[in-house]
Amino acid sequence: MGNSFGSLFKISTWGESHGGGIGLVLDGCPPRLPLSIDDIQPALDRRRPGQSKLTTPRNESDKIEILSGVFEGKTIGTPIAMLVRNKDARPQAYDEMKVKFRPSHADFTYQQKYGIRNHEGGGRSSARETIARVAAGAIAQKILDQEQIKITTYVERIHNIQMPDLKEIPTLDEVESSPTRCPHQETAMKMEECILEAKKEGDSVGGSIICRINGLPAGWGSPVFDRLEADLGKAMLSLPATKGFEIGSGFQGTFLKGSEHNDLFEVKDGMVRTKSNRSGGVQGGITNGEELYFRVAFKPTATVLQIQQTVDDKGKETELMGRGRHDPCVLPRAVPIVEAMSALVLVDHRMKHHAQCESFTF
Amino acid sequence: MGNSFGSLFKISTWGESHGGGIGLVLDGCPPRLPLSIDDIQPALDRRRPGQSKLTTPRNESDKIEILSGVFEGKTIGTPIAMLVRNKDARPQAYDEMKVKFRPSHADFTYQQKYGIRNHEGGGRSSARETIARVAAGAIAQKILDQEQIKITTYVERIHNIQMPDLKEIPTLDEVESSPTRCPHQETAMKMEECILEAKKEGDSVGGSIICRINGLPAGWGSPVFDRLEADLGKAMLSLPATKGFEIGSGFQGTFLKGSEHNDLFEVKDGMVRTKSNRSGGVQGGITNGEELYFRVAFKPTATVLQIQQTVDDKGKETELMGRGRHDPCVLPRAVPIVEAMSALVLVDHRMKHHAQCESFTF
Amino acid sequence: MGNSFGSLFKISTWGESHGGGIGLVLDGCPPRLPLSIDDIQPALDRRRPGQSKLTTPRNESDKIEILSGVFEGKTIGTPIAMLVRNKDARPQAYDEMKVKFRPSHADFTYQQKYGIRNHEGGGRSSARETIARVAAGAIAQKILDQEQIKITTYVERIHNIQMPDLKEIPTLDEVESSPTRCPHQETAMKMEECILEAKKEGDSVGGSIICRINGLPAGWGSPVFDRLEADLGKAMLSLPATKGFEIGSGFQGTFLKGSEHNDLFEVKDGMVRTKSNRSGGVQGGITNGEELYFRVAFKPTATVLQIQQTVDDKGKETELMGRGRHDPCVLPRAVPIVEAMSALVLVDHRMKHHAQCESFTF
Amino acid sequence: MGNSFGSLFKISTWGESHGGGIGLVLDGCPPRLPLSIDDIQPALDRRRPGQSKLTTPRNESDKIEILSGVFEGKTIGTPIAMLVRNKDARPQAYDEMKVKFRPSHADFTYQQKYGIRNHEGGGRSSARETIARVAAGAIAQKILDQEQIKITTYVERIHNIQMPDLKEIPTLDEVESSPTRCPHQETAMKMEECILEAKKEGDSVGGSIICRINGLPAGWGSPVFDRLEADLGKAMLSLPATKGFEIGSGFQGTFLKGSEHNDLFEVKDGMVRTKSNRSGGVQGGITNGEELYFRVAFKPTATVLQIQQTVDDKGKETELMGRGRHDPCVLPRAVPIVEAMSALVLVDHRMKHHAQCESFTF
Repeated sequence: MGNSFGSLFKISTWGESHGGGIGLVLDGCPPRLPLSIDDIQPALDRRRPGQSKLTTPRNESDKIEILSGVFEGKTIGTPIAMLVRNKDARPQAYDEMKVKFRPSHADFTYQQKYGIRNHEGGGRSSARETIARVAAGAIAQKILDQEQIKITTYVERIHNIQMPDLKEIPTLDEVESSPTRCPHQETAMKMEECILEAKKEGDSVGGSIICRINGLPAGWGSPVFDRLEADLGKAMLSLPATKGFEIGSGFQGTFLKGSEHNDLFEVKDGMVRTKSNRSGGVQGGITNGEELYFRVAFKPTATVLQIQQTVDDKGKETELMGRGRHDPCVLPRAVPIVEAMSALVLVDHRMKHHAQCESFTF
Repeated sequence: MGNSFGSLFKISTWGESHGGGIGLVLDGCPPRLPLSIDDIQPALDRRRPGQSKLTTPRNESDKIEILSGVFEGKTIGTPIAMLVRNKDARPQAYDEMKVKFRPSHADFTYQQKYGIRNHEGGGRSSARETIARVAAGAIAQKILDQEQIKITTYVERIHNIQMPDLKEIPTLDEVESSPTRCPHQETAMKMEECILEAKKEGDSVGGSIICRINGLPAGWGSPVFDRLEADLGKAMLSLPATKGFEIGSGFQGTFLKGSEHNDLFEVKDGMVRTKSNRSGGVQGGITNGEELYFRVAFKPTATVLQIQQTVDDKGKETELMGRGRHDPCVLPRAVPIVEAMSALVLVDHRMKHHAQCESFTF
Repeated sequence: MGNSFGSLFKISTWGESHGGGIGLVLDGCPPRLPLSIDDIQPALDRRRPGQSKLTTPRNESDKIEILSGVFEGKTIGTPIAMLVRNKDARPQAYDEMKVKFRPSHADFTYQQKYGIRNHEGGGRSSARETIARVAAGAIAQKILDQEQIKITTYVERIHNIQMPDLKEIPTLDEVESSPTRCPHQETAMKMEECILEAKKEGDSVGGSIICRINGLPAGWGSPVFDRLEADLGKAMLSLPATKGFEIGSGFQGTFLKGSEHNDLFEVKDGMVRTKSNRSGGVQGGITNGEELYFRVAFKPTATVLQIQQTVDDKGKETELMGRGRHDPCVLPRAVPIVEAMSALVLVDHRMKHHAQCESFTF
Repeated sequence: MGNSFGSLFKISTWGESHGGGIGLVLDGCPPRLPLSIDDIQPALDRRRPGQSKLTTPRNESDKIEILSGVFEGKTIGTPIAMLVRNKDARPQAYDEMKVKFRPSHADFTYQQKYGIRNHEGGGRSSARETIARVAAGAIAQKILDQEQIKITTYVERIHNIQMPDLKEIPTLDEVESSPTRCPHQETAMKMEECILEAKKEGDSVGGSIICRINGLPAGWGSPVFDRLEADLGKAMLSLPATKGFEIGSGFQGTFLKGSEHNDLFEVKDGMVRTKSNRSGGVQGGITNGEELYFRVAFKPTATVLQIQQTVDDKGKETELMGRGRHDPCVLPRAVPIVEAMSALVLVDHRMKHHAQCESFTF
């Protein structure tokens, strides 16, 4: 259970790290959208392993195939199935994990839940699962493009190296200019060093990512349970290695008083705007037309190439030397994933908003 | 849309601050559970306004009525409808809000979304909506009681006044011993002062709440989208005034290296346990049997009794003097709400886990 | 479980025959729809007991209260909660049913499922549950009115008394001109006799209802699982006492050959139309712009005022004399219920169609 | 939308007749179930084209591949993805359909809904879509096998050739002994003639299928909207070419009086049983432990090899000669599909019943 996301623009994903592949079905995509592999593969290329010395050397080209729902270059309103075959699988590298639980991984909990598990490469708990999210997200982004909605995501902090706040929205080129996906060059270089140092030590580091969404109309979202920030929060906390989510002023904002925190309204260019944006673009669960921004905390990668104490499946204490091909820091590759999940949430809410509110003229 | 929560243990809530009342339907409650008003009213009494000088003077007894689903003192498996009538409504106090948007409230966004709104007391965006959550949560808690699962929630920080970490789990009495719902007496007194000072200034303060859940078996939760922390995160971020959520080590944990962050396994009393608990009781979206804990950030109350710049519904800049009866700090009353939402998430996951995994013997 | 219906225009219903009342929450209603009690009560009056000598003498005025979601005469996009209190409850009339299972009722199956039940008046299995459907359906009908979509429903057959096919669509007045809700006067009189005769014998009769929907645009519905006829079929088979559903040519159509059954296309007044309409207005699960029509089979009322063999809750064979106030024939009162369920299905599909197809311009 | 089925045991299907293939994702399958291709392929072989001279000559081996969710011969609780590639596609055979709407097909309605369609072989509206249902159904049947629940399905009537009622349940061998899948040999031979005669004339025939389910415990199902018969009805009416569904006594039963129709309770071998079974194994939406049986009406195949009047996509009247490879009668191949959909509904309800009722001991 729990392998579907979205209510109208809905994906159902499948696949294990070392099985037949990774894939998804997207149901609810609007018809007539021009769509080809070229809209999707670039997003996957941003996510795929082996991009730089900062990432896992696992060599997967992650070439995607569209199996249905597209005809003569356009979506036809029926489910879009997509598939990426696993190629560079080395299941034998995981023999030891068959009986020993890796610390801070999902080996133990999967075993407890299901009484069985595919131990190769973490099986379903592998970050390879996010391929499906990115592929679907690329379609969602294409839809948002039509409405001039732009999602910009970048790495703000690695370990204790924090970039300064950017007032302007960095371009995609600026984000991509460093393998860290931090658009602030000076900080990016320090982050790179930090990651390589951790890698050399067989260790790993975490950090935080910021996502900024511009061009949203006021009125998307929902009151009560499906607030836009609640759905975005769920989306982000459903990503491997995430430990926190904050929107707008977040945890820091709680040190302010109400009189300092409130976003006063003003009129600008004939539009109702807020003078500040501590709300983060959402009020009462609904967009107010300002920039929507949020931060996500990613813990340091659980796989470290060091000997760690653990327990085996017979309940006996033992030791495990970290193996497998892993990223010393997941953040650079998490950037397109955060973007994809945001796009999925937004398109779903756009469709719900039109269904209930926009499509009626009374 | 967006007024239902849960998939098997599912609530659908309704009601405005100044309409006929607040209520809910709970579908999926197991049959044969002993249940009466006395199981629910105490939870509502913890949430209701007018408890102390720290909270809004609005005087609502919030007496709840069970309309269905309970027969001769037990649940019968059919939907449980519950209703609280609004009593101390003073809609005229909101006349000004009919045309002026309150800063950092949902007035503007509701108007943008729906093209219409009930401006009295915030309508559906009022925190009175959480009555329904607390009532349903009380039933969920009764179910968790049967399995010795205990949820402990308290205020950790108000503004910049932070209590020290507690190793032991405080008792309900300790939490309730201060109107702040901070179980650390010395800190609680300072918090109280802080809130009263803000109140005196017509201002407001925010802070953070911790929720700690003990007695969970390993194996509840779901991989991928419906990870337990993702559903808890959504639950919390769906509460009015929340701006952030973190589980386990959270944002702070991202400053650690992997070798420092990992929770090593050991055997204790014949059980597989972790030596530390930075994961926060969940790994790969599934409980591991350790304490599950998370923090929620609540912003300072948006209503401040000061003059603020704003805009009216004709798009003209104007000023608004804060009115209405509001809490200078929402955290003390948010404690039972956080507890209720946690209980709803847990029972839903418990039911899903049994449906898929526990009820089959192959 | 199973007490919600619809995905975007969604109702959650609650209530037992002899509890606090019957009610519902409707989530997803479009905002700005003019709505008052006067839009809903007339539909309930068509459903309520005690209308004529053909129906149960239980005297319930079924006055409905709107508790939320409507402000100053218009819907505001938030959940609409409605409540009808039970008045003329006589639970003591059901004392015998506490221990004896009524044949062809749900007493035995509820007991088996839940291990407990409210035996008074059938509890949740009572047809009083349909009040909630009719109330929500009245709102759906108001929405369909705006698009000139008209649902006409009437009794076609009672027991073996069948009315002739009507080419023209009867008016509501014609349907209401007889307490049988058969618009063919001559047949209606024979049906009335038939029902009264059954009543005199302490017996009951069944029959079939036809529903005809005109004014539908082409394109509503869904391929594969949520075909419009599948959702209509589910809606009808979810009604108490239904045993069958057929759309278009139905079971009779299966005696034709393909060359006889096919609906040939032609152009009429510039529109693509079909020359015949054996499809019943739906092809591949999607409307084609022709009249959508279907039939529903209702079995004879299970309560007969005769002695019947049965078993008690100790598993001992016994006898039971039918009691309680019941309709000798449910069909006349089922007409507005069939209409309501149709309206709910249509509005839900309308909203889904706009969300996915109509609201995008590419 | 509308390409998912089930709430806990849930499938999401995809694929067009002449695209990359047909497939599905099954989420919610219990872990530890022994499963291999050999459990699934035989069901597909019963469904596949080219089995006999009664069916389409399209030659598809329909070999299925399991892509995920199974490890070392057992399910692991994660999504099971399956894929069948299209092989014998001849899209050019459909060139004429690109511009002309086939009567009583979904060409026109898909075009109206989506503004675009894959015209080759009917695209998503092709019966090839049912491959996914049969593959998932085979897994559901394996689960039901563990609880000794047996689904028996056969063709009762083709055109006007009706077999006599069978008191005993025919074996699978008896059903499979004729290519018609009618287990009554004498009738089966007449049916075969009837189909071949229609085929010779370039025409087609319809009929009805009965499904009988034995071994069900009392208590599965749901009151109100998700009655077991409502979900079964929806499942059947979601199949291509179905026009009607009836459970138990169905339409015929409405000619009986209540005193004739009721199923009296008795005690037999210590069990509460009914003396007759006009209810069809379900009362109030919940199983009562008797045989659950229902009938489904299938219309004659819409494709006839004759010239028919139609309209083209420019709105001009024209003629179309039926082409493509089609079954002159869909019923024989529909038998395993009806079985599969029944199995899916039952496992889903089994899981819901355990989640809410069986897994709690209070």
